[in-house]
Amino acid sequence: MNIAGNLLIGQSVRRGTNGVSYAIDAASGERLEPGFGGATLEDVDAACALAWAAFDIFRETTLEARADFLETIAANILAAGDALIERCVAESGLPRARIEGERARTVGQLRMFAGVVRAGDFLEARIDPAQPERKPAPRVDLRLRHIGLGPIAVFGASNFPLAFSVAGGDTASALAAGCPVIVKAHAAHPGTSELVGMAVQKAVKDCEMPEGTFSLLFGSGREIGQGLVRDPRIKAVGFTGSRHAGTELMAVAAARPEPVPVYAEMSSINPVLLFPHALEQRGEAIAQAFVQSLTLGAGQFCTNPGLILAVEDPALDRFVAAASEALRRAPAATMLTPGIHRAFETAVSKFAEHPQVQTVARAQPATGANKGQGALFVTSAAAFREQTELQEEIFGAASLIVRCPDLHTMRELIESLEGQLTAALQIDEADYAAARSFLPSLERRVGRVLVNGFGTGVEVAHAMVHGGPYPSTADGRSTSVGSLAIRRFLRPVSYQDMPEALLPESLKTGNPWRINRLVDGKIALAQRA
Amino acid sequence: MNIAGNLLIGQSVRRGTNGVSYAIDAASGERLEPGFGGATLEDVDAACALAWAAFDIFRETTLEARADFLETIAANILAAGDALIERCVAESGLPRARIEGERARTVGQLRMFAGVVRAGDFLEARIDPAQPERKPAPRVDLRLRHIGLGPIAVFGASNFPLAFSVAGGDTASALAAGCPVIVKAHAAHPGTSELVGMAVQKAVKDCEMPEGTFSLLFGSGREIGQGLVRDPRIKAVGFTGSRHAGTELMAVAAARPEPVPVYAEMSSINPVLLFPHALEQRGEAIAQAFVQSLTLGAGQFCTNPGLILAVEDPALDRFVAAASEALRRAPAATMLTPGIHRAFETAVSKFAEHPQVQTVARAQPATGANKGQGALFVTSAAAFREQTELQEEIFGAASLIVRCPDLHTMRELIESLEGQLTAALQIDEADYAAARSFLPSLERRVGRVLVNGFGTGVEVAHAMVHGGPYPSTADGRSTSVGSLAIRRFLRPVSYQDMPEALLPESLKTGNPWRINRLVDGKIALAQRA
Repeated sequence: MNIAGNLLIGQSVRRGTNGVSYAIDAASGERLEPGFGGATLEDVDAACALAWAAFDIFRETTLEARADFLETIAANILAAGDALIERCVAESGLPRARIEGERARTVGQLRMFAGVVRAGDFLEARIDPAQPERKPAPRVDLRLRHIGLGPIAVFGASNFPLAFSVAGGDTASALAAGCPVIVKAHAAHPGTSELVGMAVQKAVKDCEMPEGTFSLLFGSGREIGQGLVRDPRIKAVGFTGSRHAGTELMAVAAARPEPVPVYAEMSSINPVLLFPHALEQRGEAIAQAFVQSLTLGAGQFCTNPGLILAVEDPALDRFVAAASEALRRAPAATMLTPGIHRAFETAVSKFAEHPQVQTVARAQPATGANKGQGALFVTSAAAFREQTELQEEIFGAASLIVRCPDLHTMRELIESLEGQLTAALQIDEADYAAARSFLPSLERRVGRVLVNGFGTGVEVAHAMVHGGPYPSTADGRSTSVGSLAIRRFLRPVSYQDMPEALLPESLKTGNPWRINRLVDGKIALAQRA
Repeated sequence: MNIAGNLLIGQSVRRGTNGVSYAIDAASGERLEPGFGGATLEDVDAACALAWAAFDIFRETTLEARADFLETIAANILAAGDALIERCVAESGLPRARIEGERARTVGQLRMFAGVVRAGDFLEARIDPAQPERKPAPRVDLRLRHIGLGPIAVFGASNFPLAFSVAGGDTASALAAGCPVIVKAHAAHPGTSELVGMAVQKAVKDCEMPEGTFSLLFGSGREIGQGLVRDPRIKAVGFTGSRHAGTELMAVAAARPEPVPVYAEMSSINPVLLFPHALEQRGEAIAQAFVQSLTLGAGQFCTNPGLILAVEDPALDRFVAAASEALRRAPAATMLTPGIHRAFETAVSKFAEHPQVQTVARAQPATGANKGQGALFVTSAAAFREQTELQEEIFGAASLIVRCPDLHTMRELIESLEGQLTAALQIDEADYAAARSFLPSLERRVGRVLVNGFGTGVEVAHAMVHGGPYPSTADGRSTSVGSLAIRRFLRPVSYQDMPEALLPESLKTGNPWRINRLVDGKIALAQRA
């Protein structure tokens, strides 16, 4: 399978006629062949028509068939082999080991959702049997299952060209939920997108899924992306990217005659709280780990530690010195795109020129195209509280240390923060009492609280929450990573006094799918063969 | 406890200073004493401040304490005795037996949520234990629970002065989720609201819950209601009422610096599909049951059968004749408020004067104030398809029968409908094959599909969905009735490598709360004492 720059609309391969765009080799800044033809609104319409036609069929496939489909996507991605890795490295500027790891994550994620689908718990099947003898009135028979919302628009993310892109977490969880997916590829990695798109397209065919189960479009976010979100056949949106683009999509979705949910993961500075004893005991070690997390992937993670809060103390000075020293040794790193690199430099300059911000360290100078030079800043609690622009995310390896006069002020600053994906506590046992008093504030503001680690490295697990209150995500009731991500694309439907012959398999009395169900409010575990 | 017309702000009782309003005796049209003092925006602020202060404490109460609190509310409502029933009958114009039944429903609902809280399944606790030996990287310890969103604004509904009002389903499920509640009382039943509010206020005190767990405000929807929804401390909204008011609240909530979810139940015409064999075999009996459902509670139900679809046939003529005959015998019935009665008459006149609509029956003429005279209309499939105003809900006992040339057209009409709360199928075994082909369309458009019944009578159960795609509700992923309603007010939080000492009880390794949890993706049933 070769990169040809084509749209994938159902099983068809079509040359986009709405302009031509190219990928950029991130490390060299040079244009990569071939050109990608942009989609027109007619292409959007064609993809939506196919997705709509596919929905009723795809959502009623058996659990086994749908799980097989997800596993086939995983296998086809692996089958794309080294060509995929090489193109992805070139387009993203990320190291090969990272991209190989990300492919493993992507494939693992698809397989995890295959397991979720097979288990069937996501259907949340519930049965309240009739009680014909109940007084004063008999009780009807009620059964409930969850079904997919409908076709989903997925926007690939720049910073995870595999794991949060064409066949990433949004696509995997939407397909697992029984929803057809139309992906708007990210302009930063079109070749990677096409290769992965072909793997999904082939899986649709291999598994005899309805044609419209998957489509892939290239084109402008404003025209094609918003056109997709406006289409009445699209019933939800998955997005990872900037706050600006995310809130624009939210506005488009809310203004539809039928508003639809937008799951946008947007911005987060991921506060790290250094507690006194931990800082005193292991400040230097924490500083090393911090800079490692900060510079990982050129700092281009949603969970990058962009804010450090700590109490004024000689131990904090030692931490700042150690972190500065470590950052100064760190090489500048290739960023994903020239645009992201420019935005990083602009934001870093703004901080550097801020009268109340001190630049304490920069990484090694850039030696080539698109290289981001990490930056570490320090400011006071008073400045941080008053200058809300200091709360803005810098996408890349930049972080701001805020010197607080005391723990009370530190907690006040937490209360002044916007919603975040993560918060990390650096604590020793002697800090537990203090840390405990922070937990209520943190739980209200973040999706994941972690101890003695950093937010980067988001485990794909059942108990993961990669989400958080607005504006870290558009919908703080959701996670975009882990098995719970499937819930974003489901809604409950209830059946009252439905004859056995018309009930879906998941709700038939004999439990032919052998799934766990809630019967009269109590969990009835499946009798598995 | 006497009705005094006061605001209940936390444990304080305060005379509202923003104008005075009165309840109307629905049957006589006369003003009822006392006057109710309207809230100011300062009162809104005071209630929100108390709710915010209460949230961290209330959400961490034990399951047992929170369940006791819900049961105490139920007991206190019963203790309000006949005074509550009498006032509620006067304010609503609904029959005493109905109001007694609604009180039982309200109390039962609170007790059901007490059971839900005690069971603890709603926390959806998940544990993925660490795997320190995992290659290539060790797995961290991850644990997840759900916590309340924060203080919730609840708007009482006119048509269920107890079950969807001050201590109705929204309040019960929000409190069960650990969220403080501020109720904006409906102007149609302020005395009922104050009596129930005092029962809740007393329960807060009886159970030593934090003061701000509950407040009750009277005042204008636009000023006080929207002011409440705008307050940054409010984290979600529960509403049942008109589409106009609901979409206004949605817009206010979406325009906040931090948008919040709105669970608005708004409008539904609840299609009833008469299939050929059932119509042929039992058309007259269905007609009787239909008119009974149509006229129940003066037709003032969200699930009132406002639309009948059937294929042209002599059996349909007999159905229309039988339904007309039954409706003509039905008395006009007191409606909830003069405003609702006027809106009903206006809407009925609009249908009656519509050139493509035929009025086939009216109920008996009105004999007093605010009496709604039921109406039955007939139109053609072509007219229904083209005239979208015929899809608009008439709140009250009015229904439109659409004569379809064939089943295919009937299904096309279903596809043209907006989202609905319910759809009812009247089918015999010989209709199953035809009915089956309708199910995909219905599942996409409604929250509950029911067979050989009518949507009125919404069982409070685990498998109930009282919700549906927009505009029947603002958020089709939710239900406002049944145990699943609690989910609207929850969000997941994940804890990574958190020491035992800092974990919430629900996630401690020893499972001290003895709740069911998902461990490594598998249900681990609690060992109950």
